[in-house]
Amino acid sequence: MSILLVSTTRNPDKWFSTLKEKNKSLDIQIYPDVERPEDVEFAISWKHPEGLYKDFPNLKVIASMGAGVNHILKDDELPEGVKVTRIVDDQLTKDMSQFVLLQCLAVSRNLFIHLQDQSNKNWKPKSYQTPEKTSVGIMGYGVLGQEAGKVLKANGFDVIGYANSSKTVDGIQVYGADRLDDFLSKTQILVCLLPVTSETKGILDMDVFKKLKEKAYLINVARGEHLVEADLISAVDKDIIEGASLDVFQEEPLPETHPFWNHPKIQITPHVASMTDPESVANQLLENYKRMQNGDSLMNEVDVSKGY
Amino acid sequence: MSILLVSTTRNPDKWFSTLKEKNKSLDIQIYPDVERPEDVEFAISWKHPEGLYKDFPNLKVIASMGAGVNHILKDDELPEGVKVTRIVDDQLTKDMSQFVLLQCLAVSRNLFIHLQDQSNKNWKPKSYQTPEKTSVGIMGYGVLGQEAGKVLKANGFDVIGYANSSKTVDGIQVYGADRLDDFLSKTQILVCLLPVTSETKGILDMDVFKKLKEKAYLINVARGEHLVEADLISAVDKDIIEGASLDVFQEEPLPETHPFWNHPKIQITPHVASMTDPESVANQLLENYKRMQNGDSLMNEVDVSKGY
Repeated sequence: MSILLVSTTRNPDKWFSTLKEKNKSLDIQIYPDVERPEDVEFAISWKHPEGLYKDFPNLKVIASMGAGVNHILKDDELPEGVKVTRIVDDQLTKDMSQFVLLQCLAVSRNLFIHLQDQSNKNWKPKSYQTPEKTSVGIMGYGVLGQEAGKVLKANGFDVIGYANSSKTVDGIQVYGADRLDDFLSKTQILVCLLPVTSETKGILDMDVFKKLKEKAYLINVARGEHLVEADLISAVDKDIIEGASLDVFQEEPLPETHPFWNHPKIQITPHVASMTDPESVANQLLENYKRMQNGDSLMNEVDVSKGY
Repeated sequence: MSILLVSTTRNPDKWFSTLKEKNKSLDIQIYPDVERPEDVEFAISWKHPEGLYKDFPNLKVIASMGAGVNHILKDDELPEGVKVTRIVDDQLTKDMSQFVLLQCLAVSRNLFIHLQDQSNKNWKPKSYQTPEKTSVGIMGYGVLGQEAGKVLKANGFDVIGYANSSKTVDGIQVYGADRLDDFLSKTQILVCLLPVTSETKGILDMDVFKKLKEKAYLINVARGEHLVEADLISAVDKDIIEGASLDVFQEEPLPETHPFWNHPKIQITPHVASMTDPESVANQLLENYKRMQNGDSLMNEVDVSKGY
């Protein structure tokens, strides 16, 4: 019986050592050096090559290394009956809202503009906008959106939300799906924290950018699929919005020839808004491994048909 | 009776119009167009040319346009007996602590490294440090230091302070002047918010950098005089500390040939951590003007001998 570690974009070594520390007797194989595929029942996975899992005849569970599972579910060749789990970790939620706070502060305090001025040896003090005068609109008001809203509000920002249905959460007004235009017209900094569904794919397009307040800015920390990349480039080039901070992309790593890399109004981070710390989640993964062995129901199992 | 506006690096026009709005009958002269120096009793001043004030025989008060007064006090030719005041403004204090929060988040979340990676088309996710594991040491624990400490702590950072005497403020341990080494050894991100005095000039030197924790980072938002600039360059080049964010400099604007401009480990902002909004402080200046006329004691007067 063996655990498989698969990660094409993150280094699996720390996962290996952390799991081994918890339990020395674990048999762990690391992709691509798999000698006994038939032993593997439990895979801990991040962005596996599509079709990989059909070569593991006894696989029962694929556990995502993070909160997202789209990288697993989009594979059409997942073995039938295999269960999929996601990470639920308070730290991931905190990390995300902190990253959103950092980006909102950077925008309101002109940090990206000043750093660009530095590279041009340009001393150009620029008056800033206080958070109280900066409206942040959060699209997607689930666990991540709510925490981000709370943190931004605590630091003085004027926060509103957008979700399926209208509500008020912790004193923050959340606009329902039928009031998107209203939400956008009140938003200066747009933060995308939506899940990926057929309705939200490509939602960040020119139409949305045009409806935002003056001096608008986009922060996408959800998934690359939400954004129509060509529309963003066109929107910043035409000064329809002032700029964007992107942590996620249609294709990751971002291809070397992609125009985002050296666009002066687009700030790129390499999918680091929240990263699972193996230390922090090893126990929940091993608990599920044990439950699988005992035939018990799993924690944080995803409904494969719904996608979340 | 006349007010003099002096500002060599900021545009005095908004100050003029804001004061006039409050009281149309004010007689205001703007340097260098001074026709009646003998009328001037009250100067509102930012970085005046040294020696200027000896030509104003009836000057009683020099009011700094900002929280700092060193730009006034360093002038050896200040007329004897002239009083000096500073601005105390809640908004300035809030702006400062928010800027410090932005910088600390940027450091712990590797923002500067990722932006540099972007310019090299380098996709390189890097694991980050949570605020809880990031110790921030604030040098100078007066009004600004205390507010910054409170805001950083509210956002999860592990905060300590350094001041003349040991104390505990809002649950934050503040080390006294006799425990500098102890304070430094527990500090990863060093935030300088000290006043400029003969003891604090040049305090940020190689000796201090060497005593900080591993992966240390400097944030100087106080005054350029605190930093031994050559020591900083040497410290980052030798990997004694990882980098620095500087908002203030020995000479401002930073000279075009200065090595800070294109040093990859030094981030520059052009003295924008907190900028006085004339709207927000006109009333306190005019109140002091009235008090001076009535012979009453002034608000926020500085002890010229101590320097703060």
